[in-house]
Amino acid sequence: MKTPTQYVESLRKLNLEIYLLGERVTNPVDHPIIRPSLNSVAMTFQLAQEEEYQSLMTTTSSWSGKTINRFTAIHQSTQDLVNKVKMLRLLGQKTASCFQRCVGMDALNALYSTTFETDQKYKTPYHKRFHEFLRRVQEEDLVVDGAMTDVKGDRSLRPGQQADPDLYLRVVERTKDGIVVRGAKAHQTGMVNSHEVVVMPTMALREEEKEYAISFTVPTDTKGLFFIYGRQSCDTRKLEGSPIDVGNPQYGGHEVLAIFDDVFVPWDRVFLCGETDFVSPLVERFAGYHRQSYGGCKVGVGDVLIGAASLAADYNGTAKASHIADKIIEMIHLNETLYSCGLACSSEGCPTAAGNYEIDMLLANVCKQNVTRFPYEIARLAEDIAGGLMVTMPSEKDLRHERTGPYLQKYFKGIASVPTEHRLRILRLIENLTLGTAAVGYRTESMHGAGPPQAQRIMIRRQADLESKKKLAQNIAGIK
Amino acid sequence: MKTPTQYVESLRKLNLEIYLLGERVTNPVDHPIIRPSLNSVAMTFQLAQEEEYQSLMTTTSSWSGKTINRFTAIHQSTQDLVNKVKMLRLLGQKTASCFQRCVGMDALNALYSTTFETDQKYKTPYHKRFHEFLRRVQEEDLVVDGAMTDVKGDRSLRPGQQADPDLYLRVVERTKDGIVVRGAKAHQTGMVNSHEVVVMPTMALREEEKEYAISFTVPTDTKGLFFIYGRQSCDTRKLEGSPIDVGNPQYGGHEVLAIFDDVFVPWDRVFLCGETDFVSPLVERFAGYHRQSYGGCKVGVGDVLIGAASLAADYNGTAKASHIADKIIEMIHLNETLYSCGLACSSEGCPTAAGNYEIDMLLANVCKQNVTRFPYEIARLAEDIAGGLMVTMPSEKDLRHERTGPYLQKYFKGIASVPTEHRLRILRLIENLTLGTAAVGYRTESMHGAGPPQAQRIMIRRQADLESKKKLAQNIAGIK
Amino acid sequence: MKTPTQYVESLRKLNLEIYLLGERVTNPVDHPIIRPSLNSVAMTFQLAQEEEYQSLMTTTSSWSGKTINRFTAIHQSTQDLVNKVKMLRLLGQKTASCFQRCVGMDALNALYSTTFETDQKYKTPYHKRFHEFLRRVQEEDLVVDGAMTDVKGDRSLRPGQQADPDLYLRVVERTKDGIVVRGAKAHQTGMVNSHEVVVMPTMALREEEKEYAISFTVPTDTKGLFFIYGRQSCDTRKLEGSPIDVGNPQYGGHEVLAIFDDVFVPWDRVFLCGETDFVSPLVERFAGYHRQSYGGCKVGVGDVLIGAASLAADYNGTAKASHIADKIIEMIHLNETLYSCGLACSSEGCPTAAGNYEIDMLLANVCKQNVTRFPYEIARLAEDIAGGLMVTMPSEKDLRHERTGPYLQKYFKGIASVPTEHRLRILRLIENLTLGTAAVGYRTESMHGAGPPQAQRIMIRRQADLESKKKLAQNIAGIK
Amino acid sequence: MKTPTQYVESLRKLNLEIYLLGERVTNPVDHPIIRPSLNSVAMTFQLAQEEEYQSLMTTTSSWSGKTINRFTAIHQSTQDLVNKVKMLRLLGQKTASCFQRCVGMDALNALYSTTFETDQKYKTPYHKRFHEFLRRVQEEDLVVDGAMTDVKGDRSLRPGQQADPDLYLRVVERTKDGIVVRGAKAHQTGMVNSHEVVVMPTMALREEEKEYAISFTVPTDTKGLFFIYGRQSCDTRKLEGSPIDVGNPQYGGHEVLAIFDDVFVPWDRVFLCGETDFVSPLVERFAGYHRQSYGGCKVGVGDVLIGAASLAADYNGTAKASHIADKIIEMIHLNETLYSCGLACSSEGCPTAAGNYEIDMLLANVCKQNVTRFPYEIARLAEDIAGGLMVTMPSEKDLRHERTGPYLQKYFKGIASVPTEHRLRILRLIENLTLGTAAVGYRTESMHGAGPPQAQRIMIRRQADLESKKKLAQNIAGIK
Repeated sequence: MKTPTQYVESLRKLNLEIYLLGERVTNPVDHPIIRPSLNSVAMTFQLAQEEEYQSLMTTTSSWSGKTINRFTAIHQSTQDLVNKVKMLRLLGQKTASCFQRCVGMDALNALYSTTFETDQKYKTPYHKRFHEFLRRVQEEDLVVDGAMTDVKGDRSLRPGQQADPDLYLRVVERTKDGIVVRGAKAHQTGMVNSHEVVVMPTMALREEEKEYAISFTVPTDTKGLFFIYGRQSCDTRKLEGSPIDVGNPQYGGHEVLAIFDDVFVPWDRVFLCGETDFVSPLVERFAGYHRQSYGGCKVGVGDVLIGAASLAADYNGTAKASHIADKIIEMIHLNETLYSCGLACSSEGCPTAAGNYEIDMLLANVCKQNVTRFPYEIARLAEDIAGGLMVTMPSEKDLRHERTGPYLQKYFKGIASVPTEHRLRILRLIENLTLGTAAVGYRTESMHGAGPPQAQRIMIRRQADLESKKKLAQNIAGIK
Repeated sequence: MKTPTQYVESLRKLNLEIYLLGERVTNPVDHPIIRPSLNSVAMTFQLAQEEEYQSLMTTTSSWSGKTINRFTAIHQSTQDLVNKVKMLRLLGQKTASCFQRCVGMDALNALYSTTFETDQKYKTPYHKRFHEFLRRVQEEDLVVDGAMTDVKGDRSLRPGQQADPDLYLRVVERTKDGIVVRGAKAHQTGMVNSHEVVVMPTMALREEEKEYAISFTVPTDTKGLFFIYGRQSCDTRKLEGSPIDVGNPQYGGHEVLAIFDDVFVPWDRVFLCGETDFVSPLVERFAGYHRQSYGGCKVGVGDVLIGAASLAADYNGTAKASHIADKIIEMIHLNETLYSCGLACSSEGCPTAAGNYEIDMLLANVCKQNVTRFPYEIARLAEDIAGGLMVTMPSEKDLRHERTGPYLQKYFKGIASVPTEHRLRILRLIENLTLGTAAVGYRTESMHGAGPPQAQRIMIRRQADLESKKKLAQNIAGIK
Repeated sequence: MKTPTQYVESLRKLNLEIYLLGERVTNPVDHPIIRPSLNSVAMTFQLAQEEEYQSLMTTTSSWSGKTINRFTAIHQSTQDLVNKVKMLRLLGQKTASCFQRCVGMDALNALYSTTFETDQKYKTPYHKRFHEFLRRVQEEDLVVDGAMTDVKGDRSLRPGQQADPDLYLRVVERTKDGIVVRGAKAHQTGMVNSHEVVVMPTMALREEEKEYAISFTVPTDTKGLFFIYGRQSCDTRKLEGSPIDVGNPQYGGHEVLAIFDDVFVPWDRVFLCGETDFVSPLVERFAGYHRQSYGGCKVGVGDVLIGAASLAADYNGTAKASHIADKIIEMIHLNETLYSCGLACSSEGCPTAAGNYEIDMLLANVCKQNVTRFPYEIARLAEDIAGGLMVTMPSEKDLRHERTGPYLQKYFKGIASVPTEHRLRILRLIENLTLGTAAVGYRTESMHGAGPPQAQRIMIRRQADLESKKKLAQNIAGIK
Repeated sequence: MKTPTQYVESLRKLNLEIYLLGERVTNPVDHPIIRPSLNSVAMTFQLAQEEEYQSLMTTTSSWSGKTINRFTAIHQSTQDLVNKVKMLRLLGQKTASCFQRCVGMDALNALYSTTFETDQKYKTPYHKRFHEFLRRVQEEDLVVDGAMTDVKGDRSLRPGQQADPDLYLRVVERTKDGIVVRGAKAHQTGMVNSHEVVVMPTMALREEEKEYAISFTVPTDTKGLFFIYGRQSCDTRKLEGSPIDVGNPQYGGHEVLAIFDDVFVPWDRVFLCGETDFVSPLVERFAGYHRQSYGGCKVGVGDVLIGAASLAADYNGTAKASHIADKIIEMIHLNETLYSCGLACSSEGCPTAAGNYEIDMLLANVCKQNVTRFPYEIARLAEDIAGGLMVTMPSEKDLRHERTGPYLQKYFKGIASVPTEHRLRILRLIENLTLGTAAVGYRTESMHGAGPPQAQRIMIRRQADLESKKKLAQNIAGIK
């Protein structure tokens, strides 16, 4: 396994084409807006080195028998699924942000079983190829981005009906050596901190949509692939040299638009190409794993937010007010409900035909559906507890300013025993999580990551076996 | 294990003193108001006989190695805890009511570890005595009522401060042979369908409250013990001979006030007597197990209600309306969230000093807290889908009446393919669950059973380790 | 104006055909199940006699200049609309149930403007006829039932597509003297306490559905018209002679199925007949007025429930617990939000072409939409505060029983200063409102009365002028 | 009345001491961060000039009979109160931000009645002084900031118990000519766009806290008074020259910390000084008026957000999906519920002893309590409808960049008929309102402005007359 330093150095060697705020980024690893997101990924390497966390962070490769980072592992049991959730909660607690690496883990596990089943039916060589790729990921402890979401254009039209056929990523040319793909994947978290990007289709496809039924992997510095960095709320505070104002100065996440501008993919990196009937399983499995993930990572971030709100109450002198105590209880209650859902869909998992373990699909969707709701209410309660100062306090520069600094020190003092600056730091952290850069992860990603709420509702309906419930009711009501 | 028939016959032999609607009940087993509740308990015997359900309904006794009903078992693993939840969901599905037997199971498991620990500290003989009792419960497949809730009088006063000291059950005399107890236990579900009643204190006690620190078991037909049957909404419909109006004509639950009017308890039936420091563990464990239980049983009842609402939509011709479909999805979502909580507190369980398994206390309280909310919303949605007819339709007698019957058949017809009577039956079942006898179980018991919402909130706060969350936030915010 | 006694006597003279629990009711006025609902209507006469309430309960007829009961009035101003809401809240407070008379008031006001507009377009004589009827209603202080809801059969089919064309009330014959109608109106509140029934169509109709486009009035004891009484949760407790168990022994509501079995209606009682384009305005106006009504009556019932829950807390000794106080605040908050909606749609009302005042349609629908939600939450909170005893306490007969009475007096005592019986009475009242006969009005009617939630949502969408909101956003965003 | 230009020029003449991002601001009127907030206030002048809006924006002075801007008026009727709410909604729609001027209007109306009553009791000259000030405000069409919220230090301690007595603004010296005050007022919206600041105490005071019982007015450029500008989420985007990224490039709000560093106030500008028993009425009335205000302004902002979300759905091609339509309905429903509360507390207003009109206090608090909840849910639904692109799209600079621009145009295209840029503008506007600068107003200010949620709950409890509700319940339950 790589050390965090080795990981950072390995990234430094890549030559990614990244644009940010209208400029080409020359050294992403040291860019003050990008670096915090890199630090979050690096935490997945760091904790794997610490003895205290090794049982969660590492596991044994099912082939090589070697110890590997769990983010590169294929789940061998329901315990593995449970441990994944616990690992993600831990990382959320340590970074208070999106640490980006789970999307690759979820893609690997979804492809593992799907390539196996595709081969069973079509005698294709996908599983073997994928296995080879996986072996390298484990051995080299690679960070893999899983790219699913197409830009989609007009949502009321199918891929082929769009005014521009490229609005869903597709194969534009097939040669003896490989394929050429064109399109763009949106909302890509962690992409510029990754070594490889595994591409998957975005939704179930019809037989006539074969050119969109494509899955493959390429290195992130492949020719024709480039990235435009998304801007987050308050992103440029990281450029100001005022760490207090950032709230969480060390960690963060990012999202990019990844453009595949006629990228060549050699055949041995292709895992699905035209088998439209396996798109739906692939999409559902990836989404299912990723919906499970949120029952861990967002809970960890929630822990930090609950802690921050509690500190804000302490510092304000309101911690003993019954309504404040009650709101903190409510935050905990909601957060642990999410965790319960993450755990339950894991412990109820089952093996696939390929032998790896899959979450319980119904419960994973229920998990994510709650994630689209509770973090918003937790954030609202945090804002209630924090008080208005969270959004009306002046900048760190004013705090350091000769004329204004002493007045801010005097007038923003909370309880006497705590330095004013501590109070301001905690309020900025809450701002970061509810309105700032981390709100992108804690709010919007909770809403739309792994599919928007309606996507889960469709799955819940499909998975719920309503007919058997009707029979139960008929039996009780005496209807034959 | 007993067959259902053997169980019913064993009850027939008991000579309980029961009052109902102002009269002494002579033959409870055949009383039309009581019998449905007996049928629910009998289902715990019946399903244990059916091969399909044996893995859930039965287990192996840890001492005798014999197959026993899971309701008499001491949990040996987290899998046992998970299986308990699944068993309870199954029984909820089959009875659409409270089947009453879990309260005894939960009492047995709480006493198992608490008597062990009390003996460790005080060299008392409780665990051995309890074990002897347990052996008999398992061998004779007994139904045990767990009696905890005192009547409590003025809630702002401690037990000893009440105008009447009997408002909490207490020891009024100690002799060489045993003790004499006086008091009353309220809201006792399943009591008159039980062979034994295990009594426990109702809340943490102070050292000076020793006479209230008492746990023991007596047969339900013990001298001085008698029962006044609680009336449920719509209870007397069961006397009318109109099964449709009952909604769930075959199954039900009951609650009684159990009065201990100077009941003598021999020493070998006493499991705690004055050791006030073990009251709190006993109460919390029982409550914890019982809060877990609701993540199973209420989910099963919820399945029936979801099925009934879906049928109502089918029969009304509204099943394809998007808002109806969406409400059914929401019902499922909420119901499965409860189930997830029931599963998670089970799979995260851990062994006690005595060796049996306990649920995760935080998550069990989170589970129950959700149970105080979601069934109400599920019920509200069911009422929305059902339509007003559920509460405005005439009686079954009107349906059978020469003059009115044909008009009701004509005008209450829903979709052409379904008999009017089916529609009415389903609506009556929904009424039963949301307003009628079963609403006592599905609503009020969800609220107050195993402690009211505030009791869980206090536990959530205590279990949540807020200090560690504060440290996480300080780390992120850069506060040393 | 009639005195309450005159009103009751006027009803006694009617010869209604009513069936209840499988029997023809011979003397409805004195029937113990029906009488409480009559008492509620009588309250609308009684308060009109009391000086304290005359400004709300009475007004001046716009034609005769005489003082009339407001329930028979045509709204002449927004103040009249506001006063209506206040009158309904008052009556809810005094009866804790549905007092049934507003449905007629709402029908009168809807027909007033609709007949006027129909005549304008079609030169029909409806408004003059209607005015004649209205004059009699005001002079004789009549109670009028407004009958809208058809039984509807298969909701996915139009009236004429049903297997049985009678599932929507329709004209089956037209003669020189009048029309013959056939069909049934469901969920009719107050029908058997009314002198007249005004019939309206149930939904917007297409041109080819002329025979369903019918509005008229007939006396409730008209030939061919008969009623089958709906059963409410706990209805038969009123037959037991145990007033405590009833909860609200004096007041109640009722719903019947009203069957029009080829009823002849003379032309001078017909207010719409085939003008399908005026069905939609008529339905929307009636629904609008009735959705406003709920912002008054349910708030009044809510006041009683809040008072009862507060007393339960007092009697339990929990009134000072912060979580209890907070729940009562929440109940008040929700209740007053409903009231605010009732007031706002009234004060924003506007005159119709006919000169009477109409509520603001958007806000009236918003009002009712909240009514489909908040009473459920208020009820849930009441159940939380009340405690489990509300549904587990024995019957009044047990309280009066020689053997059990003293024990119940002893063990159900709350705080020392309050008689046990008071506590039980309040708990039964809460049961009545949340699960019993009054729950039909407070819960289900709040849901479905004046149309189910989805009906309001459709109106909200239609009334909201989304296009102008889009323009606002475009202006701000700089989109030309 | 001033034109917008005159207003801006009048501000330009002031010499305010303002600090922003660590620097003294030399020309606030033209500062790109401050100017949008000035534009919002200027809108209150502009609309007053437009005929279409004059009935809402202007009224007649009760003394001079001249037409004045409603923001400077004393409410003479409930219609005035209603018109205030409608005016605020209008301004919210036109600015999509906090336009800041209502706080002064609310302060003026609260002081009007309170000074009158203080004089009645203490024969003080406050009302006359205040009247003189008010005359000038009306004649010169001044913008007045109302400053209430002290910084408060340790919330568990009274003002005089704080480690630093200045944490509540207080009188530090009294002279023949006036008083000297010291302290700071936090969260001051609109301060640097105001001509005058009216100071009031922050909470009810005890007799021994006389030096804190102070109300007065000073010009905003008074000696010793200076301002530190609060930073908002995304504030510096206004410095980037990329209007699209700002979302709402033209309008905004601001908050400052206002420091009174031994400011001298001549006696004729003092409106309360030591009469502690009139602090509570003053605070409650100001808070009451301001809680009413939110039932207007936030509704107007909500209209823009609903419009933006609808456009986002149009541009995404999802507008016809039933779940999207339903979410928009829900947004409208919640928004109109807020409006209903704003209207109801206005139309139910009543005259004070001084003759001006006050809102209904219970309903105004209910209004604000809903404002602490519904905007959060409206924002959540907007984020759901918008999709993830709202937070992951690159900067406007990338859109204008030679290499990346064409790809962004291609891949962020929604429906074919709408330019990509329109879609991006609308998403940025939604970001602005839910996460950006305007979220400070739409979320946090909705929560804490005019007092946090708990402040309203205390008032709701106090205003609700629980005892009368208990009597209603006792009457129904037959308890004498």
